[in-house]
Amino acid sequence: MRTLVIAAALLAAPALAAEPAATYPPTPSEIVAAAPQSEWVAIDPKDLLVMTLAPDTAGRERKVVIQLIPRPFSQTWVTNIRTLAQAHWWDGLAIVRAQDNYVVQWGDPDGEDKAKARPLPADIRPTSEAEYIDHPRFGPPHVFKILPTPVLEDAYAPLTTFEGGFPVGRDGRDRWPVHCYGSVGVGRDVSPNAGTGAELYTVIGHAPRHLDRNIAVVGRVIEGIEHLSTLPRGTEALGFYATPAERTPIVSVRLVSELPKAEQPKFEYLSTETDTFARYANARANRHDAFFIKPAGGVDVCNVPVPVRRVPAG
Amino acid sequence: MRTLVIAAALLAAPALAAEPAATYPPTPSEIVAAAPQSEWVAIDPKDLLVMTLAPDTAGRERKVVIQLIPRPFSQTWVTNIRTLAQAHWWDGLAIVRAQDNYVVQWGDPDGEDKAKARPLPADIRPTSEAEYIDHPRFGPPHVFKILPTPVLEDAYAPLTTFEGGFPVGRDGRDRWPVHCYGSVGVGRDVSPNAGTGAELYTVIGHAPRHLDRNIAVVGRVIEGIEHLSTLPRGTEALGFYATPAERTPIVSVRLVSELPKAEQPKFEYLSTETDTFARYANARANRHDAFFIKPAGGVDVCNVPVPVRRVPAG
Repeated sequence: MRTLVIAAALLAAPALAAEPAATYPPTPSEIVAAAPQSEWVAIDPKDLLVMTLAPDTAGRERKVVIQLIPRPFSQTWVTNIRTLAQAHWWDGLAIVRAQDNYVVQWGDPDGEDKAKARPLPADIRPTSEAEYIDHPRFGPPHVFKILPTPVLEDAYAPLTTFEGGFPVGRDGRDRWPVHCYGSVGVGRDVSPNAGTGAELYTVIGHAPRHLDRNIAVVGRVIEGIEHLSTLPRGTEALGFYATPAERTPIVSVRLVSELPKAEQPKFEYLSTETDTFARYANARANRHDAFFIKPAGGVDVCNVPVPVRRVPAG
Repeated sequence: MRTLVIAAALLAAPALAAEPAATYPPTPSEIVAAAPQSEWVAIDPKDLLVMTLAPDTAGRERKVVIQLIPRPFSQTWVTNIRTLAQAHWWDGLAIVRAQDNYVVQWGDPDGEDKAKARPLPADIRPTSEAEYIDHPRFGPPHVFKILPTPVLEDAYAPLTTFEGGFPVGRDGRDRWPVHCYGSVGVGRDVSPNAGTGAELYTVIGHAPRHLDRNIAVVGRVIEGIEHLSTLPRGTEALGFYATPAERTPIVSVRLVSELPKAEQPKFEYLSTETDTFARYANARANRHDAFFIKPAGGVDVCNVPVPVRRVPAG
């Protein structure tokens, strides 16, 4: 693992090498770095949430940025999440659960207790598990651009690919967003309850793909996930915290579009419908840089994280 | 996600239900709980390491237990690791790297600096990348017991299964241990360097299966992984810590077989060659408990964690 540092140093100073440096096909990150600006897609500020947690024990700021999933997926929950953020509904609530190799979850610690639960805004819409997938009932199916990569073998779906910047599964009729590291989903009660969007979780371990089509995926963490993934694990069943003092308070959750213009962080992602993305995915499946001796010849959809970057203010 | 708590409560008090409780096939954990003692395999104390980290900021003890991988895999590194532990080689060294959704790594912070590096014990054996896989050169191939489960579809190997309690990949000729959450591997320099076993890492994110057959897998964390997975992420390239003060000191690493008998923790794992394990894996692939509405019908090898439990002292 250490060699990656060494390899980077060699690349930075090739003139110092005594012998001609070995050449390798571009690495995944080199491919992304060379993408033209035209292949990057600006994320709409209405699709960005900033969750501010209470400062850590050293007093450092903790902000987590979440990108909401675009149409046609999970839009009723996404609408509810915007409503909740605009109502400042999460302010003063907390991270309630951290289960190792699984999820960190936040919402109303008293949500199960009708007498104490924080009331939801009046305009929260009813949701349905039918919307875990997209099929013609929700509009004409998109034409998929199947990548010329081996991102196709999967135990959980006949086919996995990317659409609109998000990993998706599909079969002959339907498509659905999948759970990867950093995915954000909607906590819910037993079926047919499909959750409102008020209780959310993010994945902090190996992709729990068995949740696909069983829970609404509504977005992903694009910055600051370390503020969630490093939280102390809860000691109760499922990683719930045993005492209120262990919970991390949420200072606020805001839609970026509601922030003053000057304070709006800007992000963009590498379009998953481009040749660059296909080459990037292929390079993830066939590592030929100096460190690798045996390219896998394949990759799973969750090992092809969609490149996202912050646009410098200016 | 919350419903799992509710479901457990219902199971605990079925007599209180007004209507007959719905019945579901046993859950994965129920299958494991019902396994007879004869299906559990005691882990040899020579295959167990205890790594003690400096106490956390609240003064709490941090111990991580690692199970070393059994024959026929990676045995030269495993031998070296026993030698290093017996020499107390890691004592006073540190966690040097924590990269989100990837690995936490420990060893000698001065390992790259020949003048300052801690010398290795004299009897450390040379290693070879040929040993990343097992094939007839290393002895007659074992007969594989292929599980009657769908743990077979995989982008990284023609077949994945379990052997001797560990997940493995295989093709028509070879077999090799694979990287899952919690796997422990050997840091190395560029090929043909294969590492000694002095620098180790554990996986704290989505399984980096592209490392299979490129690095030696030598074991897995079976207790206390939260002491590694929650460490602050390093801010330098690849998650290395920027300053020595950020590194977590290692108090000691000991082979359990070298501890006084009374202090030896005991662990056992569910044999992966049993019908119970096959039923457990099948249940992971086909979730029918109350929470699930759409069983995946498949599962990847890293989503079938081998059950391991601590044997109470007595």
